[in-house]
Amino acid sequence: MTITGKNLIAGEWTGDTKGGFTAFDAVSHQAMTTTFADATDIEVNTAINRANDAFISYSQTSPENRAHFLRTIGEQISALGDELVTTACAETGLPAMRIQGERGRTIGQLNLFADLLEKGEYDAVIDLADNDRQPLPKPDTRLGYLPLGVVGVFAASNFPLAFSTAGGDTASALAAGCPVVMKAHAAHPATAELVAQAILKAIDICDVDKGVFSLIQGKNYAIASQIVTHPHVKAVGFTGSERVGMILQQQINQRPEPIPFYGELGSINPQYIMPEKLAQNSQAIAQGLVGSLMMGQGQFCTSPGVWVVIGKETDDHYQSFTDAAAKSLSEQAAGVMLTPAMCQSYTNAIKERNDTTGVTLVATGLSGREQDCSAALFATDFATYESTPTLHQELFGFSALIVRCDDFTQMMKFTKLLTGNLTASIHALDADLTLSAQLSQTLVHKVGRLIYNQMPTGVEVCASMNHGGPFPASTNIRTTSVGSEAIKRFQRPICYQNMPQALLPKALQN
Amino acid sequence: MTITGKNLIAGEWTGDTKGGFTAFDAVSHQAMTTTFADATDIEVNTAINRANDAFISYSQTSPENRAHFLRTIGEQISALGDELVTTACAETGLPAMRIQGERGRTIGQLNLFADLLEKGEYDAVIDLADNDRQPLPKPDTRLGYLPLGVVGVFAASNFPLAFSTAGGDTASALAAGCPVVMKAHAAHPATAELVAQAILKAIDICDVDKGVFSLIQGKNYAIASQIVTHPHVKAVGFTGSERVGMILQQQINQRPEPIPFYGELGSINPQYIMPEKLAQNSQAIAQGLVGSLMMGQGQFCTSPGVWVVIGKETDDHYQSFTDAAAKSLSEQAAGVMLTPAMCQSYTNAIKERNDTTGVTLVATGLSGREQDCSAALFATDFATYESTPTLHQELFGFSALIVRCDDFTQMMKFTKLLTGNLTASIHALDADLTLSAQLSQTLVHKVGRLIYNQMPTGVEVCASMNHGGPFPASTNIRTTSVGSEAIKRFQRPICYQNMPQALLPKALQN
Repeated sequence: MTITGKNLIAGEWTGDTKGGFTAFDAVSHQAMTTTFADATDIEVNTAINRANDAFISYSQTSPENRAHFLRTIGEQISALGDELVTTACAETGLPAMRIQGERGRTIGQLNLFADLLEKGEYDAVIDLADNDRQPLPKPDTRLGYLPLGVVGVFAASNFPLAFSTAGGDTASALAAGCPVVMKAHAAHPATAELVAQAILKAIDICDVDKGVFSLIQGKNYAIASQIVTHPHVKAVGFTGSERVGMILQQQINQRPEPIPFYGELGSINPQYIMPEKLAQNSQAIAQGLVGSLMMGQGQFCTSPGVWVVIGKETDDHYQSFTDAAAKSLSEQAAGVMLTPAMCQSYTNAIKERNDTTGVTLVATGLSGREQDCSAALFATDFATYESTPTLHQELFGFSALIVRCDDFTQMMKFTKLLTGNLTASIHALDADLTLSAQLSQTLVHKVGRLIYNQMPTGVEVCASMNHGGPFPASTNIRTTSVGSEAIKRFQRPICYQNMPQALLPKALQN
Repeated sequence: MTITGKNLIAGEWTGDTKGGFTAFDAVSHQAMTTTFADATDIEVNTAINRANDAFISYSQTSPENRAHFLRTIGEQISALGDELVTTACAETGLPAMRIQGERGRTIGQLNLFADLLEKGEYDAVIDLADNDRQPLPKPDTRLGYLPLGVVGVFAASNFPLAFSTAGGDTASALAAGCPVVMKAHAAHPATAELVAQAILKAIDICDVDKGVFSLIQGKNYAIASQIVTHPHVKAVGFTGSERVGMILQQQINQRPEPIPFYGELGSINPQYIMPEKLAQNSQAIAQGLVGSLMMGQGQFCTSPGVWVVIGKETDDHYQSFTDAAAKSLSEQAAGVMLTPAMCQSYTNAIKERNDTTGVTLVATGLSGREQDCSAALFATDFATYESTPTLHQELFGFSALIVRCDDFTQMMKFTKLLTGNLTASIHALDADLTLSAQLSQTLVHKVGRLIYNQMPTGVEVCASMNHGGPFPASTNIRTTSVGSEAIKRFQRPICYQNMPQALLPKALQN
């Protein structure tokens, strides 16, 4: 495929790429040659207006037709072949196997929503009339779901496929019947264009209104503001940093009409190693945690950032645990981060953590080329953690912090200090059950997913998944961005009262 | 019962009623004798902190125990007997039969959620493990729901029971497992205290933590701000005006942690009378609309405020329609509004509408005592409506506006001008079906409930109800404040991964 560097505005490739921005080859550490057009405000406005024009007709397509559209997008992504993998690898520095896996997951997500649509109306409730009811007759009322309207989606830096152009937000919005205006991430614009080409082919094959999908390229922050404050945009999906997410939230707060903002912002994913587990499996658990931490250079939203144990620095079990973790981590290869800016942020954060009083460096990973970063494991005690707010923040990348608590009471205090998280894991043996039960009763209110004896990385895409949680894990605690429930973010209830069959959606007819 | 005039703070009646505010007898039009204590910031803070302290234990009560608690509240409200009816009638000016009906509905709502809880976990999804799955084993994942935490609820002026102290917001929050801090409405504080006494009795009978419910009295606006910005408050329910609702929304927007705000703010509830219906049933439909408009002096959130027809002023069908409406309306008794301030607002709005160029007064209801207001029906054409933004706003009370459209195209233009509404009705015959179908495809995106050949007043409390809709009908389009789905506002999903049976809630165990 030729990469044009242009925006896809309702079926047209537009924009002046001269003076535009370039992507960065994360592996060779050099700017790429293709330049990409920063979308103009006219282009963004056209994309949103065309999406809005397409809304009513797209919202009325049958679930079967939308399912076919989603499957066709998946097929067209598949048809991009190796070019998609090499492009995404270059733009993100992620290895080919990871990108191949992510491609499979992305297509799997599209098919999951297609399956859901083919199964029929979601959660419809029908209460028939009862004309004999006293004191008043009961009307016929039927609860269905409507799509919200145009959805603005922001691609994530760390998942160039599964949380980007045709990722979970796009798939669930399109499944719900909402047109999508997608803001590509400036770190992987060529990957975005390839996937947008696939979506455009699916639009042509399925004869869908071209307004239903637009891809906006750009590094200009005004584009984001324009999207989230546009009166035709009725919901926004975002996966990224707390800093940027809260800027978007504040802009959305200025709207005369409130709209839902689904921001997945940050998580330290605390890992609790309970006393018996630490005593009996310290090495295995340490190795498991290091393995989870290394996934994608720690650039997973579910990366295990804080490991909580009960014990003193001099305890045998604790030493055995940290020794095993240190040995494992020190053998881990250095690697390139998603962008040079993230590498710089990571390097600065590691330096700051290393300079923090009361924090010790347990181990670092192997060092590499100039552009590579290395893993780092730190340790501290609860008192230091409690009094040092910077330690409470997510450190994006393959670094973790061990927090030693004196006793279970302190472990509970640590738990109460937590803000919201996507996940937490309790690593325990049967002999820990009483403490695990007590912990889980508080911990459950701090997380979107509570895990037992498994690592947090690897998010299963299924009906029972929840990828969200208390703020800042999500700006909208009642929703998940992964799994089939994610479609509900872009639908809302509607009650049809006493409607003739001909005016009811098919799924609500007798 | 003795009315103390005090706040109920976690089981204790506190506050200095000297210098407090008094309720107003809407019928006799005189201030009442009991004075009520404006809650202090210390009392509000104590109520919220005690609610938060009670949260974990209350969240872990069994659904059966919460169901019993809700039913007991209903029984204790019933046991208040006639005193509740006479008190609410005096404070609101609503007739006894209406208050008796509303009491029945309030107890019915409590029992509806009790039924729901007794039926078992809501929407739980269990996906078992599959260790043989390739390329990776599938973990055991189970989706359940957790209560959000302390909920702040604001009582509505127009429903002193069903949308107030033990109304739908309180019932659904308590059902979900959330403690409630209730701000009473200053227009009916004695009614609020009586119901709070009933709740306190139920707390004692069911041995529930006293922090689970507090009643805050007051006229001081700082109380509202303190409730919605308190870090322990995790959701807010409000039914009231768009003006006050948006003040609360803006205060909530200032919080570091976003929380859901469920504000039901305003609705003009357009009534479409389709051409054949107008031609053949003009008198019956006119009388039906007047009857609906008169409910509670038009002080229903679903009051039919705008009636849309196709026709010219000189058309026979139109004249027959307005003649019948005018005749019916002119026979309607005057009545007292909920508060003198509302009477003043209504009177001012009627005067402004009467003075609006292009708007004609079709009829007024009977006049009454000095403190009474009279119904009023106006008419205008679409061009005037389109160019006069004040006509688009809700006029709270028993006044409606007929909008004449030249043709169906103009009726569709009117529909596109609409902001969000709780309801709309299409009044039509079979011969109108083609136009009704076309209309409903756009209209459905403007309302929370679409009604055919029935009046909008009277909200059925059932599983398929939706009482919400696009802004300003609701600040949170994805939720309903009436019906069993209302419980979802105060719950959020949680995924349990690979958890031992003993650590799972009962409903998620094998």
